[in-house]
Amino acid sequence: MRAMVITRFGGPDVFERQEMDRPVPGPGEVLVRVVASGTNPVDAKIRQAGTWAQIPLPAVLGYDVSGVVEAVGPGVSGFRSGDEVFYTPEIFGNRLGSYAEYTVASAAIVARKPKSLSHEEAAGIPLAGGTAWEAIVRRLAVRPGETVLIHGGAGGVGSFAIQFAKAAGARVIATASAGNHQVLRDLGADVALDYRDGDVADRILTEAGGPGVDAAFDTAGGNVGLSTVVTRPFGRIATILPPTGDLSALYTKNQTLHGTFLTREGARLREMAPLFERGQARVIVDEVLPLEDVGKAHERLDSGHGRGKVILKVGD
Amino acid sequence: MRAMVITRFGGPDVFERQEMDRPVPGPGEVLVRVVASGTNPVDAKIRQAGTWAQIPLPAVLGYDVSGVVEAVGPGVSGFRSGDEVFYTPEIFGNRLGSYAEYTVASAAIVARKPKSLSHEEAAGIPLAGGTAWEAIVRRLAVRPGETVLIHGGAGGVGSFAIQFAKAAGARVIATASAGNHQVLRDLGADVALDYRDGDVADRILTEAGGPGVDAAFDTAGGNVGLSTVVTRPFGRIATILPPTGDLSALYTKNQTLHGTFLTREGARLREMAPLFERGQARVIVDEVLPLEDVGKAHERLDSGHGRGKVILKVGD
Repeated sequence: MRAMVITRFGGPDVFERQEMDRPVPGPGEVLVRVVASGTNPVDAKIRQAGTWAQIPLPAVLGYDVSGVVEAVGPGVSGFRSGDEVFYTPEIFGNRLGSYAEYTVASAAIVARKPKSLSHEEAAGIPLAGGTAWEAIVRRLAVRPGETVLIHGGAGGVGSFAIQFAKAAGARVIATASAGNHQVLRDLGADVALDYRDGDVADRILTEAGGPGVDAAFDTAGGNVGLSTVVTRPFGRIATILPPTGDLSALYTKNQTLHGTFLTREGARLREMAPLFERGQARVIVDEVLPLEDVGKAHERLDSGHGRGKVILKVGD
Repeated sequence: MRAMVITRFGGPDVFERQEMDRPVPGPGEVLVRVVASGTNPVDAKIRQAGTWAQIPLPAVLGYDVSGVVEAVGPGVSGFRSGDEVFYTPEIFGNRLGSYAEYTVASAAIVARKPKSLSHEEAAGIPLAGGTAWEAIVRRLAVRPGETVLIHGGAGGVGSFAIQFAKAAGARVIATASAGNHQVLRDLGADVALDYRDGDVADRILTEAGGPGVDAAFDTAGGNVGLSTVVTRPFGRIATILPPTGDLSALYTKNQTLHGTFLTREGARLREMAPLFERGQARVIVDEVLPLEDVGKAHERLDSGHGRGKVILKVGD
């Protein structure tokens, strides 16, 4: 089978097309034929420097699969050949990332693809959508009537976070560069602000009214200190990056900070799926490229200015 | 009436005995004759530098009252003259701290004193016990079977935190200097560790077993970074001081950090009271001094080495 492999860490040119053996599903595992693969900023971080993921080389990266179950290993009862599924693969041992024609995965982290979505759309969901769901719905537990601030609302995680917070009945204030404010509004944000404005804290407080927003979600990094200032006493903050800056207000205002990081879980994908099936959330696909053009996709990730998902078409 | 007043910020010698008018309770307020006053490290911080409390001078400090209702203002239905009560006073306007013979307070922040306790004991509870209750019971929501780490377990907040975590059914690992380890054990700690040991993180992980403690509470400052390392994935951390240090593990481990800070609430005191009445928690009174010796009490606070509460006897 085809796979785009890296044998060293470096720039977007490190990917090499290789023929590999198709993996074999073990007990509790499913073998999935990948139709489409998502790409995420974390892929680029790993490609550049390895990072915390401690992935041994050579490696097949890619954290978003949408595809079709080809075979199941012993003891798998929830899936069978032909099922359309989506998930975030683990990458270790014989488990490959989504930049390949086939991957195996524990059945526990796999879920059925929302029927109303194409594979190209579904491949944009698992990692970014799962992270946003974890933060907005499970950890921040956003409720109707609340006001929520989302830093980096035009990014992969942020764009889902806006939609999930709206679906939860909240008013959403989102930040992005001015060129992406229409994207924020299209996603449902009630207020779009430029994070580079010197008075962004004052503007958030004015928009929130009263003592500040009920909850804030930092998807861009470096905004937890600002969030403590603009979030009300006993409010909640979540971050998907290291919390930095002056966090004194976190304790004087009795706030709660939730660290949020990649976890894999079929249940969470099943929780999210109805929103996509009912049209309460959608995937913004910016571009679909063939698997072999993964280097081009990574050039986009490196630029940091994507407005939607760059999807790799892997199979049919 | 007598009060110990400060007219400037500075050392323990800034207190002056003054005669003041007895305050008059307004609508919704109670007038309380103070029998005993607690002392807390935060009193010393304010006395030294004013701090965030923004208390105008001259001021009567003191955040722990145990006493008797002398009179009630218009609209107060829950209390009457003669009721024994305890609470943390607000300090602004005509509302004085507990270093005085009488204070007025909003009835909403006052609760009935646990009957089984003396006023000297009850005066040791409101601020430190309320803070520990907020952190252990409400925010960290410690459950039976969990393992909880308490930094600074021999201090005012820490000593209540150990007892509340034990009452909640948890196993408790507590830190203090070696000279206070017997105090930790007397309070119910299962494991006593010296925070100055170079391998304290390894020892906590060994004692906790598995991936780390379920919850950690920093009552001493500077331990949030360490807590992220020794707390399990999806574990909870609380702090009563600014979170400092490397907090990267907070997000990679999906942990939650709760800032906890003084709030006043009669309901919380009512929630705690049964533990003291049933003997599931007690107050460690180290010394009782007359109100006029508040300077001596503050020398003890400045030393940072108290093993229990220094209580001021104000009236009979």
